[in-house]
Amino acid sequence: MKYYAKPLNRLINELNRLPGIGGKMAQRLAFHILSMKDSEALALADAIREAKQTMRYCSVCGNLTDEDPCSICRDDSRDDSIICVVESPKDVIAMEKIREFRGRYHVLHGAISPMDGIGPEDINLKSLITRLQDEKVQELMIATNPTIEGEATAMYIARLIKPSGIRVTRIAHGIPVGGDLEYADQVTLLKAVEGRREL
Amino acid sequence: MKYYAKPLNRLINELNRLPGIGGKMAQRLAFHILSMKDSEALALADAIREAKQTMRYCSVCGNLTDEDPCSICRDDSRDDSIICVVESPKDVIAMEKIREFRGRYHVLHGAISPMDGIGPEDINLKSLITRLQDEKVQELMIATNPTIEGEATAMYIARLIKPSGIRVTRIAHGIPVGGDLEYADQVTLLKAVEGRREL
Repeated sequence: MKYYAKPLNRLINELNRLPGIGGKMAQRLAFHILSMKDSEALALADAIREAKQTMRYCSVCGNLTDEDPCSICRDDSRDDSIICVVESPKDVIAMEKIREFRGRYHVLHGAISPMDGIGPEDINLKSLITRLQDEKVQELMIATNPTIEGEATAMYIARLIKPSGIRVTRIAHGIPVGGDLEYADQVTLLKAVEGRREL
Repeated sequence: MKYYAKPLNRLINELNRLPGIGGKMAQRLAFHILSMKDSEALALADAIREAKQTMRYCSVCGNLTDEDPCSICRDDSRDDSIICVVESPKDVIAMEKIREFRGRYHVLHGAISPMDGIGPEDINLKSLITRLQDEKVQELMIATNPTIEGEATAMYIARLIKPSGIRVTRIAHGIPVGGDLEYADQVTLLKAVEGRREL
């Protein structure tokens, strides 16, 4: 017995494929889309199509952009001497939101993970090496995630780059601001102790 | 400072308009859509467009359908003597899923709500009256939601139809199966007591 008409069923299935959207939610969204004004629903369809067609990866840093090179790479006011290395374009957004970092970025699009068969050649690392040779970079700030893969990637890059004399740094990991010592996991607390600074 | 390229920003905004999708989730979905294969992302866009263009309301019962009349109204094997009255097409699906009800449906597309300025003439009620005159209906089973508006609508329809001699029934409200008496709200418990049956 099929409960939904074909086009509705198709829409529910497509929505259901998205991360974090289960069956119930997909049904709710589909019914909502059908109850929207034609112009609104088509605006959503067009936004998906347009984003998919115009967004690409910046040929310099690997960030998501609609113009190549991306706006950050084109921005002359930014500091050429420091590159922040992140795993994904989302991390660039998170970094930009603190409005503190004014250097350049390099997006790896992943992290080294031997368990998943992802080696150094499978992430966007080669172009980073090229950039370091061409540009006047003095510091590489590694902001990969504090996961096993992120840490392994940070270690790998550090070992690779350090001999060239460029300073390689890692962002600090510890108790989040507003967080409670009591509820911090052991690894985070260990990182916080290891990373302690003189007052 | 804008963090996202325009097409990405547009996509995030459109996703953010959907119910239950906040800013973070919209960003996550947008990045996911960009990381999908072209064919998959365009399938989603097309599904929205197609559903919006082909789905309409059945001219008989008001249910969502891609063919008019809908598959339920066209199904000769169904019982013409009973019509189940629901608020929305979603309720038809819920009802069909129990695989017990084999009659027809009538979708009101809302409920009477004087507070919101929704009167009997603002919901799909007129065509129900016409159906009752034309068809050989013996029972009207009202399955509007057990909210103030749903109850008011049920009462209104009952008063309107009863004089014509058609049986008007209301689905039972009470403690859900598997539910705990202790955690049932007072109104539900009251309904359960009121609706008690001989064992």
